[in-house]
Amino acid sequence: MIKANDPSLKSWVEVPENSDFPIQNLPFGIFKTDYMEAGAGVAIGEYILDLTYLHENGFLDGLGLPSGVFNHHYLNHFIGLGKEKTREVRNRISELLEAGNDELRDNKPAREIALVPMEEAEMLMPVKIPNYTDFYSSEEHATNVGTMFRDPENALLPNWKHIPVGYHGRASSIVVSGVDIHRPKGQTKAPDADKPSFGPCKRLDFELEMAFITCRENGLGNSIPTEKAEDYIFGFVLFNDWSARDIQVWEYVPLGPFLAKNFASSISPWIVTMDALEPFRTKGPEQKPEVLSYLEVKDEKNFDINLEVLLQPEGGEENKICKSNFKYMYWNVNQQLAHHTVNGCNIQVGDMYASGTISGPTPDSYGSMLELAWKGTKPVKLTDGSERKFIEDGDTVIMRGYAEKDGLRIGFGEVKSKVLPAK
Amino acid sequence: MIKANDPSLKSWVEVPENSDFPIQNLPFGIFKTDYMEAGAGVAIGEYILDLTYLHENGFLDGLGLPSGVFNHHYLNHFIGLGKEKTREVRNRISELLEAGNDELRDNKPAREIALVPMEEAEMLMPVKIPNYTDFYSSEEHATNVGTMFRDPENALLPNWKHIPVGYHGRASSIVVSGVDIHRPKGQTKAPDADKPSFGPCKRLDFELEMAFITCRENGLGNSIPTEKAEDYIFGFVLFNDWSARDIQVWEYVPLGPFLAKNFASSISPWIVTMDALEPFRTKGPEQKPEVLSYLEVKDEKNFDINLEVLLQPEGGEENKICKSNFKYMYWNVNQQLAHHTVNGCNIQVGDMYASGTISGPTPDSYGSMLELAWKGTKPVKLTDGSERKFIEDGDTVIMRGYAEKDGLRIGFGEVKSKVLPAK
Repeated sequence: MIKANDPSLKSWVEVPENSDFPIQNLPFGIFKTDYMEAGAGVAIGEYILDLTYLHENGFLDGLGLPSGVFNHHYLNHFIGLGKEKTREVRNRISELLEAGNDELRDNKPAREIALVPMEEAEMLMPVKIPNYTDFYSSEEHATNVGTMFRDPENALLPNWKHIPVGYHGRASSIVVSGVDIHRPKGQTKAPDADKPSFGPCKRLDFELEMAFITCRENGLGNSIPTEKAEDYIFGFVLFNDWSARDIQVWEYVPLGPFLAKNFASSISPWIVTMDALEPFRTKGPEQKPEVLSYLEVKDEKNFDINLEVLLQPEGGEENKICKSNFKYMYWNVNQQLAHHTVNGCNIQVGDMYASGTISGPTPDSYGSMLELAWKGTKPVKLTDGSERKFIEDGDTVIMRGYAEKDGLRIGFGEVKSKVLPAK
Repeated sequence: MIKANDPSLKSWVEVPENSDFPIQNLPFGIFKTDYMEAGAGVAIGEYILDLTYLHENGFLDGLGLPSGVFNHHYLNHFIGLGKEKTREVRNRISELLEAGNDELRDNKPAREIALVPMEEAEMLMPVKIPNYTDFYSSEEHATNVGTMFRDPENALLPNWKHIPVGYHGRASSIVVSGVDIHRPKGQTKAPDADKPSFGPCKRLDFELEMAFITCRENGLGNSIPTEKAEDYIFGFVLFNDWSARDIQVWEYVPLGPFLAKNFASSISPWIVTMDALEPFRTKGPEQKPEVLSYLEVKDEKNFDINLEVLLQPEGGEENKICKSNFKYMYWNVNQQLAHHTVNGCNIQVGDMYASGTISGPTPDSYGSMLELAWKGTKPVKLTDGSERKFIEDGDTVIMRGYAEKDGLRIGFGEVKSKVLPAK
């Protein structure tokens, strides 16, 4: 077991019950305050542990960390040290925060600087993203979409069970939780119109996804086998893949989604390490037909992570509209990364690889409005009496995620974004 | 007229007849030598003018350039200064190289350091590419592909004349001329096979493209109108969009090309500025039906640039297999950038936007082997007696481009890459 994962650990920092951030989590992020430049931190309870301060003041001595490695606007330098080193850092932070350790606990001046209340901090993008890929790995989602738009009898396309289908997305427009999104404008064509028209998107949607972030390069021309994939994955965030359905349907044949997606994607600010998720491994769905040998995996490669989507109308309350789970993924991250690099494609530190919409087997577990409201035929009722077929201006979409087992809860926090009218 | 474009200018640096790099061109690139770190340079005849040296030794004083702006592994810092500033720099370089100017010409020690013979230098990637998009903007290419794979009667898809169709590609695997390419491996499925198989690509192809590079940010949520697009475009390179046709056909429905493309793309090392191409503006094809107003352009937005592809078998001679022209593009770069940002998508400095395969109206102007050999039915004959349906191991593919008018030739040099067997 990784030392920092020990379920018996308690921290001297008070961690509220049901907190996403107990001492067994220790996710990494980038934060700033009114009085501090952006830098790296770790979440513990309702505080952020300032890693720049710890490093500069000797609390991380002996780990051989480069000077200034946390003092950046992005975590790329840090995670690029590799999993062995970043695991050592997480273990050391766990040690410092452990109830019986007095190094920081009893050093009041240091403790008061090193622990920043979350309410005083603004969370920023955790990594600079050199490349972003979106997969399409939930069988239920692909089946729902195929049923609605193509043929219910042949909802899955012939390649779907052989290939972890994916496509390249836009890295520049990925933003962090809290950044408002303007409704995009674009070109659409109604099925009965004889020509396209231009205007604000009428079918704005979210997609509930998770994304992994890579921490190591393979080098152009080299493949990553499934059994080595985890050496390249630092951790995970929640991912809202905003989608303009009416723009998408007109533009996407034959080269795939483009302006329907690249106006914005939103992520949660804390990267939960793959290490912290170890206790929540589970088997994925059975894969039939058998996959090609380069996609074979052994053991448990899925993760049991509860996911939910909430919709909050302007001035109203949160409505839980979806409950799903990351374990539903048909294709796991090892297979996704092995497939992505089997042709020699090179991955880079900070790359983001999203799962595709994570829909479960029941209608309340569908990960998009398109599916929840079944193409507008079953509007979603909200507690204020209104209905939604898609997302309206003023709506806030919130995604939360947490893994839970034997009293241990490892959470992701949230990705929360409000939709503003088109500019 | 931009000062540096004056056709009457002559340089004191000897420029061979038919050189791609007369004093009216002055393209920017990144080079290194055995005795020098990577840094920025400008091509003149058979020399590279070392901008780091010029800047450090006062030859660019008065331009207000940041210290060290050329002393980088990429041109992003420099081009990010904006077109007004980079135009001033090009004008000043022109002045320094002009026959009558003695500042550098008669300063032998400086001149001998500042002018590096091209044969002593290695050209590197000119920019770090945050985002890469590939368009699909040649009507002839889209028609050819549609005729071969879909319906000759309805070769163009319904959206094609309304949207400059594009998709996101992989930035990490774009490499510079001279870097060998390994044949990719991947998953394919023969039409008559009952399941897919894995192995080296059997239908490796090139695509003759050009790409523009952006030098300014619009900021997420802001659109760039067609009439402002040129403020955001620094210049152009030649672009070989390597394609694995057999992988592509199995993977690309419904989300577009992925592993068929992302194993490598190759570019020419010199960025020819949009300024240097001013004299070669020309009208594009008539656009019917009328485009939506956000895509309307005035004046001449296409460029008359001769393009050619040569195939050189292992140990053999160059065979010219394609003669095309950038002027054939149905959608121009102003329209591409306006479309890309109409939904608020943010562009960044160093982004690369490729044109899509540039095919002309005649069979010898088709910009890919797929089209030249018409899906393998009309193999291309080489001078050594061999034939090609696609690219074989050991083949070198060379793309060259130049604009020519009234005795003035502005060239791109070349992008040249050899295909090695699968690893």
